[in-house]
Amino acid sequence: MNIKPLGDRVVIKKVEVEEKTKSGIVLPSSAKEQPQIAEVVAVGAGITEDEKKKDEIKVGDKVIFSKYAGTEIKVDEVEYTIVKLADILAVVQ
Amino acid sequence: MNIKPLGDRVVIKKVEVEEKTKSGIVLPSSAKEQPQIAEVVAVGAGITEDEKKKDEIKVGDKVIFSKYAGTEIKVDEVEYTIVKLADILAVVQ
Amino acid sequence: MNIKPLGDRVVIKKVEVEEKTKSGIVLPSSAKEQPQIAEVVAVGAGITEDEKKKDEIKVGDKVIFSKYAGTEIKVDEVEYTIVKLADILAVVQ
Amino acid sequence: MNIKPLGDRVVIKKVEVEEKTKSGIVLPSSAKEQPQIAEVVAVGAGITEDEKKKDEIKVGDKVIFSKYAGTEIKVDEVEYTIVKLADILAVVQ
Amino acid sequence: MNIKPLGDRVVIKKVEVEEKTKSGIVLPSSAKEQPQIAEVVAVGAGITEDEKKKDEIKVGDKVIFSKYAGTEIKVDEVEYTIVKLADILAVVQ
Amino acid sequence: MNIKPLGDRVVIKKVEVEEKTKSGIVLPSSAKEQPQIAEVVAVGAGITEDEKKKDEIKVGDKVIFSKYAGTEIKVDEVEYTIVKLADILAVVQ
Amino acid sequence: MNIKPLGDRVVIKKVEVEEKTKSGIVLPSSAKEQPQIAEVVAVGAGITEDEKKKDEIKVGDKVIFSKYAGTEIKVDEVEYTIVKLADILAVVQ
Repeated sequence: MNIKPLGDRVVIKKVEVEEKTKSGIVLPSSAKEQPQIAEVVAVGAGITEDEKKKDEIKVGDKVIFSKYAGTEIKVDEVEYTIVKLADILAVVQ
Repeated sequence: MNIKPLGDRVVIKKVEVEEKTKSGIVLPSSAKEQPQIAEVVAVGAGITEDEKKKDEIKVGDKVIFSKYAGTEIKVDEVEYTIVKLADILAVVQ
Repeated sequence: MNIKPLGDRVVIKKVEVEEKTKSGIVLPSSAKEQPQIAEVVAVGAGITEDEKKKDEIKVGDKVIFSKYAGTEIKVDEVEYTIVKLADILAVVQ
Repeated sequence: MNIKPLGDRVVIKKVEVEEKTKSGIVLPSSAKEQPQIAEVVAVGAGITEDEKKKDEIKVGDKVIFSKYAGTEIKVDEVEYTIVKLADILAVVQ
Repeated sequence: MNIKPLGDRVVIKKVEVEEKTKSGIVLPSSAKEQPQIAEVVAVGAGITEDEKKKDEIKVGDKVIFSKYAGTEIKVDEVEYTIVKLADILAVVQ
Repeated sequence: MNIKPLGDRVVIKKVEVEEKTKSGIVLPSSAKEQPQIAEVVAVGAGITEDEKKKDEIKVGDKVIFSKYAGTEIKVDEVEYTIVKLADILAVVQ
Repeated sequence: MNIKPLGDRVVIKKVEVEEKTKSGIVLPSSAKEQPQIAEVVAVGAGITEDEKKKDEIKVGDKVIFSKYAGTEIKVDEVEYTIVKLADILAVVQ
């Protein structure tokens, strides 16, 4: 991947989640602020070089983020989303 | 539970409150900013690693939060809500 | 009382004020931002542990607050309101 | 008077101003942000204990304030207004 | 003049400007944010006691200010306007 | 010129730009935030006395600024505009 | 190029991107906040002289920015856009 996000931004790739498997995470379609699962593919220097933020998130993490946050771009036929760290709610471990 | 909230966020699970028991807490449906009771299941590092905030809340606490705050997600058939610490009004002891 | 307000919040209980007694405080119903009298029942750590704020208010104080501020909750059949310190206008001595 | 304003607030009592006397201050009714004259009856600790603000205003001062600012209360049949220091425009000497 | 403006406020008195004299300053009536010329009659302590602001403006200066800024008052039959320093655009020398 | 802008303000005089000359700068009329070329005629002390800002702009510079920013005034039959430094986008060299 | 952007601004020149080449970056027309690719042609001193920002971006970088951000100008028949650093989402490497 050849996109370096600036500042506190993160590049993520949406993950398909099958509905209703026992151990899967199911996101209700009626959620007020529809969240989605994604994988982190790049983290901005404003995060990796900040003592407090650098441990919050790293490449490969699965994260929950607000569906309507960010800007979508397509690189080599793959769709990515550029979001701010503040739009990422949690890391799924 | 396998969700790690980022920053000042907290993962909570709503608690069913029976109405009108003598020692229970009853939340009037007409309250201007409808509050609800929930149990804390995970606390973000932005809280646990902050000298001032870390004593405010911990896993297992019963809390009152604004009903319309946060994002709902479902993990292993259980519904959780991710809220910011600022959306938690009080701890019920 | 078993509610611990978080941060700069205060739990108060409204006080009934008889209108027009000579020494009582009467709040005109037409006031632009309708104030009310209440008694402080719990004060958040964000106030009690702040050098500047801790002398402003304490449990037992009678206070004037903006009527539409805060969230109402009912505990053991008693109605309380959780407000921010900034919504309390004055202490009645 | 038994009202102690919190923070940067001030308790004032409106002063009747006779219109059109030569040395009086007349406030035009068509002023964009209708000002009024009042006397200061109590000053909050956020002002009296602040090196920069404590000399700006004191009990007994006649002040010009924005008419629509603040909250009106009645104590012992006297009407007072609780305003923020920022809503007081000038001291009339 | 007996009005002491608080904080960063300034008391000014509007100056009549004759239109179209060669050396006069003419303010077009169609200006987007209609400016006006005034003379400074009192300066708040928030300005006179601030190292950076005290040289910006002084009593007697002719200034250009936004027409719709401030509060108008009348003292001894003379109309004044109380504005904030930030509403004064320039000093005319 | 006898106008001293206050704070971070700058007095500029619009420059007529002939359209479509090879080396000229042409501003399309359909630009979203219509920019214009002007010459700087006076710079406020908030800029000239600030270590970081004083090298950004000086009297005589040709600048691009947002067309709808600022306040227009007329001095000695010449039209000037008073804008904030933040409304100046670039210096044309 | 003879335009020096002020402060945290950057001058960029849009790059034509052919749709659907395997290694090209394709920007879907339905993106919520339509991004575009551009080349950086000038960087403001507020960026080059800031320890934290100076490594984020430099002349020649290909960047993704929000389509509706900035001000368009034309110099010597070439169209440029002046944007703030905060409107640049990522650098394409």
